[in-house]
Amino acid sequence: MQPSIAPRTESARSKRPAIVAAAIDRFGRDGYEHTKWAAIADDVGIGQTALYHYFESKAHCLLTIMRTELTQSLERFQRTTSTEEDPAEALRLAVLTAYEGSARDALQRRILQNHVDLLGTPRPSQKEEEQRQKARALVREIEEAWTDLIARGVQSGAFPERDPQMSARMVLALMVGVWRWYRPGGKYELDKIAILTSQAVLRVVV
Amino acid sequence: MQPSIAPRTESARSKRPAIVAAAIDRFGRDGYEHTKWAAIADDVGIGQTALYHYFESKAHCLLTIMRTELTQSLERFQRTTSTEEDPAEALRLAVLTAYEGSARDALQRRILQNHVDLLGTPRPSQKEEEQRQKARALVREIEEAWTDLIARGVQSGAFPERDPQMSARMVLALMVGVWRWYRPGGKYELDKIAILTSQAVLRVVV
Repeated sequence: MQPSIAPRTESARSKRPAIVAAAIDRFGRDGYEHTKWAAIADDVGIGQTALYHYFESKAHCLLTIMRTELTQSLERFQRTTSTEEDPAEALRLAVLTAYEGSARDALQRRILQNHVDLLGTPRPSQKEEEQRQKARALVREIEEAWTDLIARGVQSGAFPERDPQMSARMVLALMVGVWRWYRPGGKYELDKIAILTSQAVLRVVV
Repeated sequence: MQPSIAPRTESARSKRPAIVAAAIDRFGRDGYEHTKWAAIADDVGIGQTALYHYFESKAHCLLTIMRTELTQSLERFQRTTSTEEDPAEALRLAVLTAYEGSARDALQRRILQNHVDLLGTPRPSQKEEEQRQKARALVREIEEAWTDLIARGVQSGAFPERDPQMSARMVLALMVGVWRWYRPGGKYELDKIAILTSQAVLRVVV
C-alpha cells in the first residue's frame, strides 16, 4: 500500500480519539475512581504533558465522554424517529437503536449512567463546567424529545391518555437500567435485550 | 415529664444515628463528592476523633448508608409480599411500599442509586469492604426476591410466560429510576409517583 500523499494535518495526528478510547475502556472496566489518570497516558503511549493538552483532568475527560454519549443518544433518537409517522413504531425503533453499537459504545453508556449524579453540582474548573452544562442541557433535551414523541401518540389517539413526561421518564429508566447489569458475554445478549426492552416499553406506553 | 430512671447505656448516648442523618442530608443535598467529612462532625457537634469512632472514612459512612437502604428495601419487600397470595396484588403492594417513608428515606434511596457503581470494585479498607460485600449480596437477594415473586405469577398462570429475571430487572429499573429525578416539592408527589409506577409495573409484568 502506498503511503498517503495528503499532508498530515494537526487533527490527523490528534491523540484525542485514542485517549478517549483508552479512558472508556479503563473507566468502564476498572471504574472511574480506580483509574489513575497517568495510566491513560501510558495506554496511549504519550507523556503526561501531552495528555493535559487534550484534557485538563480525569473529570474533564469523564464529563466529555458523558457529554459525547448524550449527544449521540439524542442524534440516534432524532435520526430514527424523524421519518417514522406511526408513534408506536417510532418508539419501538428508538428503543432498538439505543442498544446498537460496539462493545465500547456499551461501556460508554454504562459510564454515563454510573456518573449522572456528577451533573448535579458545579465543577471547579471552567472546562469541566462547560462539559457539565452541555451534558445537563442534553439530558433535558433527550427527555423532552421522548416526551414529545409520546405526547404525539397520545394526541393522535394511538396511545392511551397518560402524562407524557412521566411516561418518558419511565421509558428512559427502563432503557438505561440495562447498562447497570449488562456485561458482554453474559446470559443476555444486547440483541435480545433490545427486543425485550422495546416490547416492555410499548406495554408501558401503549 | 419525669427524667427516665433507666441507666444510660452506651447505645443510648451513641452519636451514630445523628451522624448517619447528617451524612444523608449532606450527601443527598450537596452530593457525596462535595461533602467534606469534617462538616459532618460539625453538624453533629462532635470532634473528628469522635467521628472516626463510628466511621473510619466518608466512604465507610456512604457504604453503610447504602447497605442500610438495601437491608430496609429487602425487609419492606418481604413484609409486604409474605402475606399476600395473589402475585399481581403482591407486586402492586411491593411497588407502593417502596415509595413510603420520610424525606430522608427518599434521600437515602437517591444516594444508593447514585453510587451503585461503587459496589463493583474492592475497597482498600476492611470496614469499607465489609459493607460493600454485604451490599452486593443484598443487591442479589433483592433481585432474586422480585424474580421469585414474578416466577410464582408466571407458574400459576397469573402472569404471561416471560423470563422472570429479566422482568424483575425491568421492574427494579422502573422503580429506582424515580430517585434520579424526584425532588420534594417538585411537580410530582411521591404518592402519585407510587401509583403511576405500580400501574406501569403491572403493565410490564402482567
